[in-house]
Parts: sequence; C-alpha cells; structure tokens
Amino acid sequence: MTQQTADFETVRDWDNGNFVHPWEGMAGIGRNDRTFTEGGEGIYVSTQTGERLIDGPAGMWCVQIGYGNTEIAEAMAQQARELAYFSPFNNANSTSARLAHEIAKRTPGDLNHVFFTTGGSTAVDSALRFIQFRNNVLGLPEKKIVISRQKAYHGSTYLAASMSGKERDQGWLDQASHLTHFLPNVNPYVRAEGQSIEAFLDEKVADLENAILQTGADKVAAFIAEPILCSGGVIVPPAGYHKRCLEVCRRHDVLYISDEVVTGFGRMGHWFASEEVFDIVPDIITCAKGMTSGYVPMGACIISDRLIAEVSGDKSRDATFSNGFTYSGHPVSAAAALKNIEIIEREGILEHVRDVTPHFEARLGALADLPLVGDARGKGLLGCVECVADASADDVLALDKTVGAMIDAHCQENGLILRPIINMCVFSPPLIISESQIDQMFDILEYGIRKTTSDLVKQGVKLA
Amino acid sequence: MTQQTADFETVRDWDNGNFVHPWEGMAGIGRNDRTFTEGGEGIYVSTQTGERLIDGPAGMWCVQIGYGNTEIAEAMAQQARELAYFSPFNNANSTSARLAHEIAKRTPGDLNHVFFTTGGSTAVDSALRFIQFRNNVLGLPEKKIVISRQKAYHGSTYLAASMSGKERDQGWLDQASHLTHFLPNVNPYVRAEGQSIEAFLDEKVADLENAILQTGADKVAAFIAEPILCSGGVIVPPAGYHKRCLEVCRRHDVLYISDEVVTGFGRMGHWFASEEVFDIVPDIITCAKGMTSGYVPMGACIISDRLIAEVSGDKSRDATFSNGFTYSGHPVSAAAALKNIEIIEREGILEHVRDVTPHFEARLGALADLPLVGDARGKGLLGCVECVADASADDVLALDKTVGAMIDAHCQENGLILRPIINMCVFSPPLIISESQIDQMFDILEYGIRKTTSDLVKQGVKLA
Repeated sequence: MTQQTADFETVRDWDNGNFVHPWEGMAGIGRNDRTFTEGGEGIYVSTQTGERLIDGPAGMWCVQIGYGNTEIAEAMAQQARELAYFSPFNNANSTSARLAHEIAKRTPGDLNHVFFTTGGSTAVDSALRFIQFRNNVLGLPEKKIVISRQKAYHGSTYLAASMSGKERDQGWLDQASHLTHFLPNVNPYVRAEGQSIEAFLDEKVADLENAILQTGADKVAAFIAEPILCSGGVIVPPAGYHKRCLEVCRRHDVLYISDEVVTGFGRMGHWFASEEVFDIVPDIITCAKGMTSGYVPMGACIISDRLIAEVSGDKSRDATFSNGFTYSGHPVSAAAALKNIEIIEREGILEHVRDVTPHFEARLGALADLPLVGDARGKGLLGCVECVADASADDVLALDKTVGAMIDAHCQENGLILRPIINMCVFSPPLIISESQIDQMFDILEYGIRKTTSDLVKQGVKLA
Repeated sequence: MTQQTADFETVRDWDNGNFVHPWEGMAGIGRNDRTFTEGGEGIYVSTQTGERLIDGPAGMWCVQIGYGNTEIAEAMAQQARELAYFSPFNNANSTSARLAHEIAKRTPGDLNHVFFTTGGSTAVDSALRFIQFRNNVLGLPEKKIVISRQKAYHGSTYLAASMSGKERDQGWLDQASHLTHFLPNVNPYVRAEGQSIEAFLDEKVADLENAILQTGADKVAAFIAEPILCSGGVIVPPAGYHKRCLEVCRRHDVLYISDEVVTGFGRMGHWFASEEVFDIVPDIITCAKGMTSGYVPMGACIISDRLIAEVSGDKSRDATFSNGFTYSGHPVSAAAALKNIEIIEREGILEHVRDVTPHFEARLGALADLPLVGDARGKGLLGCVECVADASADDVLALDKTVGAMIDAHCQENGLILRPIINMCVFSPPLIISESQIDQMFDILEYGIRKTTSDLVKQGVKLA
C-alpha cells in the first residue's frame, strides 16, 4: 500500500480514472488524456514530453509573478516549519494578521476588514452571506435579491454559481434563482447596429436601475459585478459604466460587490482595479488567484468599515457572523501572499504592467483586422479574440463551438497555450511578461488564427 | 508602502482591526485580543509569550502528524519550485493524479472518483451539487431534499451551512431550507429516562425512514451524516446506527454522503472510518483537514464508480458537471497530502492511534465520575466532556454558556488548549500523541474541571 513509482502511461490512467476535473464532461470522463504540465519557469510551462509553452492564461488567470519562484517556495516552507496551522476560530497568528493589514493598506477607501477564505468561490459565497447577515441584523430580512449580469462568473459554490450568468453552465445544475436577478449582456460588441456607445451605456445603466425599481429597492440587497467579465469572454463594459452603476446603487441603498478575483493583484497594473482603474469605492471586494500568484489556495472578501460599523458594537444585537473556514487566514497561504506582495512591489511589477499594457493592447487590437476575428478586446493584461464565420455555413453552430479549440491547438503546436471558450480564446499572461515576449505571444496567436482560417476555408466555410 | 516591521502590540492591532475571524461575534469585533499561536513542535504550540501548550484540538481537528514537520514543508517547497500551479480545467499534473490514485486506493468499496476542493465546506457543497446534477441527468429533478440531523456540522458555504443543524448558528444567517429536512438529536445521552439504548437506536433509525416516507422518496435525494457529530459535541450514535441508516437509504433510493472531514485520515485509526469502523460503504465521502494534516488547504468529495457510471458515457446526455475550483487538485496541496500519507504510513500512525485509543477512552470515561461532568464521551482520538449543574441555580443559563470556557482557561494556565463549546469542551489531539502525553493531557483536564467546580461552588452553584 505504499506509494507506487509509475511510468507516464500509468500516471495518465490515474488522472483519467481517479481525478474528476472541474467542468468534467460526462460523455468523455475517463478517456480525456489531458496534457500534463509538469514544470514551469517564468512565463513558460513545460509538458510531460518536455515541450516548453508560453502560458497564455497564466494558469487560470493567477500566476502573476510567473513560475519557479524560489522565494515564495521558501516562504511557505519556512512558515510550515515554524507553524503550519493555527485555528482562526480561537487564536490569532502574526503572519495572517500582517497579511490582513497589508491588504487593507492597498484596498480603496475604507475597505479594511479582511475575511479570509480558501479561494474566489468561497470569497463570493462569504460576501453574499455577510450581506444576508447584515440585512438580518438591520431588520431588513426581505432585502435579499442580488442583481448580477449575463456572462458573469462568480464561482462554484451553489450560492456563488447562482450569481453566474454564463448560460451554458446552467443546464444541469440547480440555482438559488429566488435570490437572483440577471441584467442583459453589457458587451458593447453585441449592441444593436447603429447604436452609439453612449446610448448603449445609458441603456445598461438603466437596466440596473429599472431592475431595482421593478423588484423593489426594499427587496434588492446588492449588485455584484466583475470590473471586467473575464470568464464570460473578457467583456469590457463602456467607460463610466461602473461609476454610474455605483451611483444607482447608492440611490437605492443597494450594496456594491466588486468581484476582483481576476482583476485584483496587478492584472490591470494596480493592486485593485475598482478605484484606480474604474473610479469606484465599492462596499465589498472579493479576491483570490493573484493574491498568492496561485502558489497556494487563498481568497478573501474585504468588507468596508462602514458595513462592519452598521452591525457591530452596540448595534450588533449580539449577533455572530457564523461563517468561516478551517483554513481562514491559513499561515502558509498568508506567508505566500505576503512574499508575493513583497516581490510585486520590489520588482516594480505593477509599474511594469502599466508600461507594457499599451503594447499588449495595440497588438491585440491589430488582430481585429483578420477576417476570422469579429472582436479583439481587452484591458490591462487581459485579452480575448472572438471569432465569426458566415452564418450561412451549414455547420456554423459546430464551428462556433470548436473554433477556439482549433486556434488553441495550432498555437500549442507553436509554443503558446490559450484558454479556448466556445468561439473565443482568452489569455492573461503572467504579469512579468516582457515586451518581446508579448510580441512572441501575439506572433504565435496570429499564426494560429491564420492557420485556423485556412483550415476553415478548406472545409468550405465562408468568412466575412 | 513596504511591509512594516512591528512590535507585538501593533500586530495585535492588525489582528483586531483588519482580520475578521470565523464566527466573529459582532459585539466585540475589534477588541478581541486573541492569543497568538506563533510556533509548534509535535503536539505542542507556543504562544507569543513563549508559553508551550498541548494542542488539545490539533488546530481545528486537523494537525494529525503534529507541528514542525520539515518533510512536508520541504515537499511543498519542492513542488512550488518545480510547478506551483497548473489549471485543472485544461490540464493534468502527475502530483495531483498520483494523489487521486493514492486516495482511491484507501477508500472503501468503489469510491474511486476524487473531486478535489479547497476544504471541507467546498467538499460538501460539491457533493450536494453533484447529487443535484446526477438527479437532473437521471430525469429526477424533483428529488432534491437532503436529510441531515440536529447538531450536525457540514461546513460554511450557504449550501453546506444549510445542512448544519447546530441551532445556535442559524439565528442570523439564511438557509436553503427548502432543500433540507432535519432529524432529531441522535445523542444517546439525551434519550428519555428509562429508554434503553436499543430502543433509542430503533427510534433514531425510524426517524430517518419516517422522514423519507413523509417527504416522499421521490423527493429525497440524500442523507448526509458525519460518522461522529464532531462540532456538535463529539456525539457518537448507538452502535449499528450507520449500517441500519444505510439500509434504509438503499430501500428508498436515497444516496448516503458520509462526511469524514474530521474522521478521515486517521482520527479513528483508519484512513476512513465509514467501512472499517462503522461497516458502511457510502455513495460519497467528503474529506479535508487531516488530508494534509492542515499544513495547506485541501479537501475532496469522493464519488463512487456506480454514481459516475449512471451519468457518464452514453448515459451522460452530453452533460457537463459545471462545478470546480481554480485550486482543484492544487499541486502544492497535493504534494503535502502525498507526503502526509507517506509519513502516516511509514511511521505507523494508524496503528499507533489504534494502540493508544483504549487508554484515551479509559481516561476520558473516568472523567464522568466528576460531579460537574454529565457525560464524557468519544471514540478514537475524539473526546468531549459535557458539564451539568443543578438546574435550580439562578444563573444556570449563563453558567451553561461559559463553563466550557472556564475549564479551557484553567487548562491553558496549566499547559493545555481545549475547544470550548457552550457547556462542553472537545479535544482531538495530534495523532502522534504518546500514552504518557495522553496522561499529561487528561491530568490537566481533570485539574481544570476540578478547579472550575470549586469556582462554581464558591459562586453558590449546586452540583448533582
């Protein structure tokens, strides 16, 4: 019963047979033969066959400082040797307390109360539960509906997933539909022909206010929004959208949760995007991923002092926020996060992101000229190409589903991993990517799109 | 904006001001002045003042192999240097695949499909979502109610918390009540005077079957049960309870989730308690905590091959189980878990637990003779003392709430941390505890109870 030594075929059998992956398709379970990533260095990962690939999605939007960082590895080991665990239910620990403080220093406004979780899903779940708690303590038990948006992604607990508007995910799982209301797509790319961006923006802001008015402000607890809808396809709402939405929320005593699980910790060149990029100070920010550069699981839901003041001390009605995790503020995760913050600061990574972003955005924008590309959009080090083909082709639906995967396959052959989503490919490289590496990445991507285009043309698909 | 060096007072201010702890009481938030645990070695933790204490609860039921293990620290660092992260959505990794296999080897029956999560709460949330998914795919969308029990604790996402029957936690947070049904307390200690254990057992099993019949088997999806209700006060149901409950479930096509977040990974002297201690092969086992000895966050929901077969391949209806986490099967967590399994096996820790358990249980049982103790119960290395005082005392309710904390305070002065819960103290020491350390622990505990007793007598409380 000791642990076996094994050749690659055996290890692949273990993965196929014993590891149920996220978003596992049940038709093919057990026969997936996934690519194994086994090593990493900087912006590159290497596979079981020794291929070295630029990691376009930085893992899953998370490996900010890149792979192979020995400082974080040593910080985790050092903390594990000293004290690998403490119970946050009963005790405190200086590493975790310090991290709470270092995060609070970097958040906008009065968001100084850090509730640690195990990742983004539990950060959102906890944020929503805190708002339920707050409204119960305030004597507003009917004020519980949360407004979200089509194409939003907020995580994978029952409650967090209920806030996710990615239609394709909702077929086979249940949702807490009585707690949610979804607004239409905020992607300017899908606006009506002839509609101006300004008119589209007015419409999207009105969508929110109308939803609050129709539902009743006394029933709406919160609006939850990613600054950029990332898993939905890097959707960037029109400029000014968030600020106007926050004003709508303020008018109707609706709280604003800014879900920065992807945008937090440097992705847009700032610790948090809410204030420095989008000029809003929300009531709650959720974060995870970049917090530890993905080196170890951790998330947080950061609550404003104002919200805490409303339900604490004499106003508390002796209430306990009975929510939390064995691993809340885990010291090894906290040590990794602290070292990650130190490295980002010392190496000037936020400044670097701001420096290379114009070049990234220029290369991205240029892809829109390719005939297969309908839209090439992004902001900060977040990008997406969305493909189109002539809707008269017989197999346009099947094509739509696979074109992202076709591009990804061509790119992988040439040294770049993307994240295909239906007819899109998204990417969010490690923040340490240099300008010449950005060129390398886009050169391969452009090649992959052109190669896919010629495959499609050979199949008889007409392009615009 | 770099990280500050700080004296202890400052760090305590950070903890008070910036770190919202689990189960934070809002009346006292910001003024808690918690004890800092800063170091650990074996079964001991040390505080900011250098006090060395036996860690009675092993962190939060999790530090199986004890503190300061440099092998796990090095295994995590080594994995972080090689590959700190891979995306389980798109790729595989040999460390995580190996862990899935090593877990599957140790589970009962055909529980060979491991769905990794970030902790126990997400393990339970995912187990419940998988059952919703399964019943949707099978065309049974109305079969969704989950039966749980009073005093159960199943975690802290909205859905997992909805399955928790600890009455005191439900005051201020919302529950998905439409999805749950709770059975009465299964603690033999609270059975009616004169009722035999056998009659109590019959009644508890009948509670389950009656609930299924009254709700309608076509509406009941699952029964969820900790083998021992741990956070509820280490409640051990009568012998034979689980096996008979499983038979009831089988009769009515109700799935059985065995929540082994506490009992898994050695706490009862076996990898899992379900089969080897309680003689059941459930449909799903959830685990976390001891999986990595708490050194890094990780959990899992382990699904039977039979359940997967029902909804996969040709029977899949092309469904995707759209659930999962950025950190599912995180390689650093997996490396820690693999090393933890290796250590438990190499050091013979399961055998050790079985060897010392009789002594632990004997010392525990002897506490029942003390006048303050109403019940002293446990199994494996899990223990609880529940206190009673004369119900005629004026302040019996207040007493009931604080007596656990009083005992804990006296024990801490003498070198032992407990986990006080209302009128109880629970403990679950690191599995490496020696027989003489067990004696040390119970000597201090007995002293703490006697000291509390004399405090109470001085306050005029009468004892039975």
